[in-house]
Amino acid sequence: MKTCYIFGAAPTPEVSWIHVAPDEEDAVICADGGYQLARRAGIKPDWLVGDFDSNRETVDFDQVIRVKPEKDDTDIYLAVSHGRKLGYTRFVIYGALGGRFDHSIANVQMLKGMIKEGIQITLLDAQNEVTAMMDTSIEIPKSDFRYFSLFSLTEVCEGVTIKGGAYPLTDYTLTSDFPLGVSNEVAEEKAAVSVKKGILLVIRSKDAHPNEKSSI
Amino acid sequence: MKTCYIFGAAPTPEVSWIHVAPDEEDAVICADGGYQLARRAGIKPDWLVGDFDSNRETVDFDQVIRVKPEKDDTDIYLAVSHGRKLGYTRFVIYGALGGRFDHSIANVQMLKGMIKEGIQITLLDAQNEVTAMMDTSIEIPKSDFRYFSLFSLTEVCEGVTIKGGAYPLTDYTLTSDFPLGVSNEVAEEKAAVSVKKGILLVIRSKDAHPNEKSSI
Repeated sequence: MKTCYIFGAAPTPEVSWIHVAPDEEDAVICADGGYQLARRAGIKPDWLVGDFDSNRETVDFDQVIRVKPEKDDTDIYLAVSHGRKLGYTRFVIYGALGGRFDHSIANVQMLKGMIKEGIQITLLDAQNEVTAMMDTSIEIPKSDFRYFSLFSLTEVCEGVTIKGGAYPLTDYTLTSDFPLGVSNEVAEEKAAVSVKKGILLVIRSKDAHPNEKSSI
Repeated sequence: MKTCYIFGAAPTPEVSWIHVAPDEEDAVICADGGYQLARRAGIKPDWLVGDFDSNRETVDFDQVIRVKPEKDDTDIYLAVSHGRKLGYTRFVIYGALGGRFDHSIANVQMLKGMIKEGIQITLLDAQNEVTAMMDTSIEIPKSDFRYFSLFSLTEVCEGVTIKGGAYPLTDYTLTSDFPLGVSNEVAEEKAAVSVKKGILLVIRSKDAHPNEKSSI
């Protein structure tokens, strides 16, 4: 499915985990200072979006379109809005987690707002893959993201069912004020997660050191 | 006010920002692998709580009480529960942000649940101070935490008012699906934030490099 890749400005010391090979139909947008991240990852962006308050380097290619920022919108939000205008409904965002926690939370709230409008966004960093789902089912394959955790982004999520996980659930009501769904693992080839009503935050993650058992 | 300090196991490469000098009436609890963080910060804990799946070092002092973990509770949640049993209603938690994002989100959901029960929790790391407020007013002094950001943890927060901030608000309804309240700054000596109905997440933060202007 055609995808819009966005690069944000969150600190990303190491970039070897970034594997983006955009197709003809894909787009790459840098949100302001995210241009440095894209460049370090060897990716040539199609667009630059932002108010450029944190992008002080000279931009060294031609296809730059600067977008005048609306007041109140974050740079990543502006980048997603621009991608939507280009016709994209599926986004993968790098450089959106880590560093200032307000930025990370802003991006989670953006996921919640966008999924209501049919826009699927995934935030990726070296240890985490963060996305939202609403009134649907997904499969989670076994992978090097060892854990998956589910959180209700609405006051409650009704009819939460987990099959093929180490901790199965059936038709459970998950609330947003008690972290019950942390550190599940795929027990078989894949797990299946579904939610009947509400918006679930789905976080797949791994420990910094693969042999270390998780603990929080 | 007497305070319970908790140390969690999130990655904290640098500890010079941790300044804890517990009084007689305070308590220090390590949540499992958080013991290593406390030790690196030069703090002697009163209690160790957790299932000790990530604390492989030999504990080198006497006052250890191991608490059998309840299924479904995270180590930090167990530590807070233990502190509540000791009579504490105010908690400051180190090592609760960074690394695995599911851990960070679990801690934010814990803040939301706890503030409903009158328990005030603050999560601290080098760049961020994260807390929740409900149906109340707070003052935010000018400090090296340059920014403050507000997010609704309930579907909406009603009657949100910001005075003395670069972006003032009056009786505003903030929703949890659009990140409007990001990167405000204290414009005068202090700012005042109040919310009439709902639970606000308040994040004070600073950039990794103080001279860098914020951008997201």
